[in-house]
Amino acid sequence: MQIAILGSGLIGTSWAALFLAYGHHVAMADPRESAEAEALPAIDAAWAGLALLSDLGPLPTDRLTFHRSIAAACQGATFVQECGPDRLTIKHTMLAEAESALAPEVIIASSTSSLMPSDIQAQMTHPARLLVAHPMNPPHLVPLVELVAGDKTAPDSVSQARIFYEAMARVTVVALREEPGHIANRLTSALYREAVHMVASGIATVEDIDKAVAWGPGLRWALMGPHLVYHLGGGAGGYRGYLEHLGPTQASRWQALGTPEMDRATIETLIAGLQDELAQLGNPSRRALEEARDEGLIALLRLKAGLPL
Amino acid sequence: MQIAILGSGLIGTSWAALFLAYGHHVAMADPRESAEAEALPAIDAAWAGLALLSDLGPLPTDRLTFHRSIAAACQGATFVQECGPDRLTIKHTMLAEAESALAPEVIIASSTSSLMPSDIQAQMTHPARLLVAHPMNPPHLVPLVELVAGDKTAPDSVSQARIFYEAMARVTVVALREEPGHIANRLTSALYREAVHMVASGIATVEDIDKAVAWGPGLRWALMGPHLVYHLGGGAGGYRGYLEHLGPTQASRWQALGTPEMDRATIETLIAGLQDELAQLGNPSRRALEEARDEGLIALLRLKAGLPL
Repeated sequence: MQIAILGSGLIGTSWAALFLAYGHHVAMADPRESAEAEALPAIDAAWAGLALLSDLGPLPTDRLTFHRSIAAACQGATFVQECGPDRLTIKHTMLAEAESALAPEVIIASSTSSLMPSDIQAQMTHPARLLVAHPMNPPHLVPLVELVAGDKTAPDSVSQARIFYEAMARVTVVALREEPGHIANRLTSALYREAVHMVASGIATVEDIDKAVAWGPGLRWALMGPHLVYHLGGGAGGYRGYLEHLGPTQASRWQALGTPEMDRATIETLIAGLQDELAQLGNPSRRALEEARDEGLIALLRLKAGLPL
Repeated sequence: MQIAILGSGLIGTSWAALFLAYGHHVAMADPRESAEAEALPAIDAAWAGLALLSDLGPLPTDRLTFHRSIAAACQGATFVQECGPDRLTIKHTMLAEAESALAPEVIIASSTSSLMPSDIQAQMTHPARLLVAHPMNPPHLVPLVELVAGDKTAPDSVSQARIFYEAMARVTVVALREEPGHIANRLTSALYREAVHMVASGIATVEDIDKAVAWGPGLRWALMGPHLVYHLGGGAGGYRGYLEHLGPTQASRWQALGTPEMDRATIETLIAGLQDELAQLGNPSRRALEEARDEGLIALLRLKAGLPL
């Protein structure tokens, strides 16, 4: 397929590597003069990660083009991945230009993490083709893609997008309704709220909270989600056993959770706590941490490929 | 060391395998007549898992004894891991019997997930030796041990317990204050509350929520905790950059999170959703799921041993 990627930042370049790895042609649109020079090394780095997961040759630059204009990138495109800034007015402008160049049936998937598809598609000529397809960072390594339809999205657009992403080893989920944070970021926000509360109210340090997740529940969550975890937690009675016997415990624990303010004092406490944690880790650079994360994700994907989950 | 484990259920048998693997002697106390016959296969199964992580011979049954009485198991013990039912009156009775047989300086660590150490130690003769050392299931595989002191716990008891667990490749964190859920289960409860809300309010299915976690944020959480994740999410600006620019987004997303009731209708919706999920997975048995989880955890621990995190 010929895929137009609108925006060549962190997410756009990661998508580009993935799409290229699965044989697609990619046309990137970005108005910034420096876009190509910045994007190419990022695509190359993501490509190197993907090459550890399957047998890839060198980056196929013959299938990759860069364009200053959205209309040019959309010429002949059969799928569009929109990765522009998360501001509605900018999206509207970008989509108007894209639609001017696209055949009416071409699907446009927005990578937005914070906007609602109904708002994004509000001014479109062919809004039925627009949906949200939200990845987790970095998209070329984390398989999750959340699909969200707006009021005017055609069900067939969601079905087609699902096929498109699953053909590239993505794991798709479908939000039944558009809500802030889609699905996954609602869960991360809920966990993070309590992580902030515990620091702000002196229950635990930033470092110990991070250690607790990465050496505790995070290990299980890499393998199974919260419902399945409690299905096993229910012993022979399964999920029903868990909910009948321990559901009330959960509900009472919910009462004890905090509702912190993200005020100046909290922010400074969080930053100081993270500095302590980084010092304990030997003050690794952001690059070193990203490399460790990506190395870990690649190993995890290999590991999960061999598990019946 | 000579370790008494009070209670030979799921947690006690898992601890037993771990302690034996690190060369300790283990005396298990359980009043039930069937205890030994039930515990031995469980210890054996956990031992088989540990044998995949390091070079272990057959289960050293010469270092493992079973006792109907707590006092008998505590004879000569140099550390006690309490794994009884999570009811305060039972704990008080168990600890009175343990103290009758123990030297006064021997540390008693409670595996409780829901009780507070100040309540557990309230009636003890030597309360300074009591602390909570809470593992995640299964303790022989998940490295996290949360240490929590009560009002009367001596700081030295926490230090000694820390050394004890870390010598067995456990990762310890210390709660700065005793609160329901300690640290990790506050985070799992926060995430689970939103997972329940999304099902109850029709935002997503049980299956898609589980898939979203295990193919999305769960992969990152197996490698790093939420604060470190957002440090990387902040780009070149690090955690400060994230909090200054996206902190308000988080705070507004918190407003959109739900506060579900764990009522009958919700419980039935959750159970029906999990049945759909299990059907999609080919209706695996609980045993098969546990084996997949443990196989995954063992592979994850190997993987993390090679990462600089």
